[in-house]
Amino acid sequence: MKLPTLKLRKDQERRILAGHLWIYSNEIDTRETPLKQFSPGELVAVHSHRNKWIAHAYVNPHSLISARVISRHPTETLDEALLTKRIGNALALRERLFDNRCYRLVYGESDWLPGLVVDRFGDYLSVQITTAGMDAVKDQVIDALENLLKPAGILLKNDLKVRELEGLEQSVSVARGEIPDRIRLEENGAFFETSLTKGQKTGWFYDQGGNRARMQDYVREGDSVLDICSYAGAWGVTAALAGAAEVHCVDTSKSALEQAVTNAALNGVGDKIGIQQADAFDALRQLASDDRRFDMVILDPPAFIKRKKDRKEGEQAYRRLNSLGLEVLKNDGILVTSSCSYHMELSMLQNAVRQAAVRQNTMLRQLEFGQQRQDHPLHPAITETAYLKTLFYHKA
Amino acid sequence: MKLPTLKLRKDQERRILAGHLWIYSNEIDTRETPLKQFSPGELVAVHSHRNKWIAHAYVNPHSLISARVISRHPTETLDEALLTKRIGNALALRERLFDNRCYRLVYGESDWLPGLVVDRFGDYLSVQITTAGMDAVKDQVIDALENLLKPAGILLKNDLKVRELEGLEQSVSVARGEIPDRIRLEENGAFFETSLTKGQKTGWFYDQGGNRARMQDYVREGDSVLDICSYAGAWGVTAALAGAAEVHCVDTSKSALEQAVTNAALNGVGDKIGIQQADAFDALRQLASDDRRFDMVILDPPAFIKRKKDRKEGEQAYRRLNSLGLEVLKNDGILVTSSCSYHMELSMLQNAVRQAAVRQNTMLRQLEFGQQRQDHPLHPAITETAYLKTLFYHKA
Repeated sequence: MKLPTLKLRKDQERRILAGHLWIYSNEIDTRETPLKQFSPGELVAVHSHRNKWIAHAYVNPHSLISARVISRHPTETLDEALLTKRIGNALALRERLFDNRCYRLVYGESDWLPGLVVDRFGDYLSVQITTAGMDAVKDQVIDALENLLKPAGILLKNDLKVRELEGLEQSVSVARGEIPDRIRLEENGAFFETSLTKGQKTGWFYDQGGNRARMQDYVREGDSVLDICSYAGAWGVTAALAGAAEVHCVDTSKSALEQAVTNAALNGVGDKIGIQQADAFDALRQLASDDRRFDMVILDPPAFIKRKKDRKEGEQAYRRLNSLGLEVLKNDGILVTSSCSYHMELSMLQNAVRQAAVRQNTMLRQLEFGQQRQDHPLHPAITETAYLKTLFYHKA
Repeated sequence: MKLPTLKLRKDQERRILAGHLWIYSNEIDTRETPLKQFSPGELVAVHSHRNKWIAHAYVNPHSLISARVISRHPTETLDEALLTKRIGNALALRERLFDNRCYRLVYGESDWLPGLVVDRFGDYLSVQITTAGMDAVKDQVIDALENLLKPAGILLKNDLKVRELEGLEQSVSVARGEIPDRIRLEENGAFFETSLTKGQKTGWFYDQGGNRARMQDYVREGDSVLDICSYAGAWGVTAALAGAAEVHCVDTSKSALEQAVTNAALNGVGDKIGIQQADAFDALRQLASDDRRFDMVILDPPAFIKRKKDRKEGEQAYRRLNSLGLEVLKNDGILVTSSCSYHMELSMLQNAVRQAAVRQNTMLRQLEFGQQRQDHPLHPAITETAYLKTLFYHKA
């Protein structure tokens, strides 16, 4: 297989040999192999400084991550055969882990498919492509998915801002079959409807599925639950099914809240769910000043820290949110608090909660810590694949 | 309440005000209040440098941790009333979390009872006291437990080496009622027998209970399982109950393995359990050279790093163990690997596994991470209360 060479600087192959898939521009010998000679998405043979073959990768000269490894076998390239093998491997793992067909089927680097995310909703697939290298083989990806899964519809949900950085346009389009306005999915035995085209991200946050199952163990019959940033009611409905008597869902999105109401009804707990369209902070402040207190408070906000430079400001936001959440939690209550920001480290979130407890003179015990569900596995060498942190606390 | 004063150096009250319970000797103004004026276990009023009351604590001038806070309320001291309140609070949390009466009832600092550990086995209690301060109120602890739980027997399992550092003798004695040779406990719906007097630690490792429940989700009907450092068969029997066809238990203790056999029979899976009395490393090397391969490998060794100075050597041992474990794991198999060493950080264990995978040219995904079960909650300010790390990997 003859591919153009991308040469690394001295000793810069180490991280790749240790399993990592990313190559940064400063690791590349740009005198010998200037990045600008490559087109976005072009396949290359990565060589060490001593001209030893290391891996195959795809390049994007415009991206922060200049190249991503697609194989460490000299005979493999990014074609339909490799895509089929990798997606098939990802599918086998999910089929082993789940009884239903609702999960993240492909989680990028962790499934050795950098730049590709596929969420499965029974007969429908929502696909996100985030790199020029994966975009270049979009048709082969779709073909591989079609052959492996025979889905009724495949949506390309390519409306991510990150695509801009890769020089890709943002769009949402149906690649195969049909995508209905609303699709139905199953999670922890409950059923939910969402919109693949209009919903957030791929339409559903499967990553919290395992934590929602854990949450159910903490709900007592008759509990009151506050669900902050409820989206389409996944947490709230799951809490109601576990025995909560009343669940108060807060979100800024009217359509998400309407979906939450529909989802509650779908699971026979329509009478238990109340909704409030409001900013999370405003709603919490109002509830606190109205002396409303809940047996369980669930905080599952969107990422407050999207880029490293937003870290300080974002951390402040997590502090404020957790402080308010703790304030409206009853004694003997459970706080479920989450961050999906990679840059908000576990210890930062723990500190935010601890400091709030100290200020409120409250004693807490941390009962559990959950990461993203197993269909979002962690790549052992790529710490960036671990982003979700969900903590369970008991307030004494 | 008039107690002798223990005065802190300038600004050294901060950690206590932030919720921590430990005071080190270098934080104490030993000119004004020399540590040697206190007897081991003596109660004191902790004052700031400006003579502001901060907390009540008990002192041990011979210990690395010179004092441990027992209350931040000026009217509370370490008497039966406070012990009853704190143990009652710990009990309420466990009763909320568990359907059976088998759990760690008191987990020291996390339940604001520094120096006290109580494991409950239905009608029996196993108590460990690790500090002179808690030892001084031993009788009140026993009385409080008696009043709250009416147990059939209370064992004082005070055979810990750490007691030496506190100037306490090591002994095992029945404090109340009777302790039978064997007691029976329930975990994840299975039943196990153990010896409270002769078993390791308090007789059972409840801390892995939650991880054993998770493990069951990964067992497929007919799987072969290797259980390294099996102790009394908790992992192995649980795996057999989840569908494993054959479980190979390895432990150095003959009595633990005999107990594993009994426990397997007790749960109707006696025909599925094989035992081998051997060193973990020797057994793994032999299995590897015999080309034995398993669908699941469980590594749950005793702490290889007991003190910080053993860190390097201990880390090596974890590396070797995980490398061997990965070697005897089939492709498409699950590695369950654990460390109960506080000084073996999560990232160190992850690195041990990652490096083994690279050497063996194996692709891994980390599926889950579990800490100790909720009856061993984490104190938000005391990182030392988090010690157990159990990781679940899939080998591609």
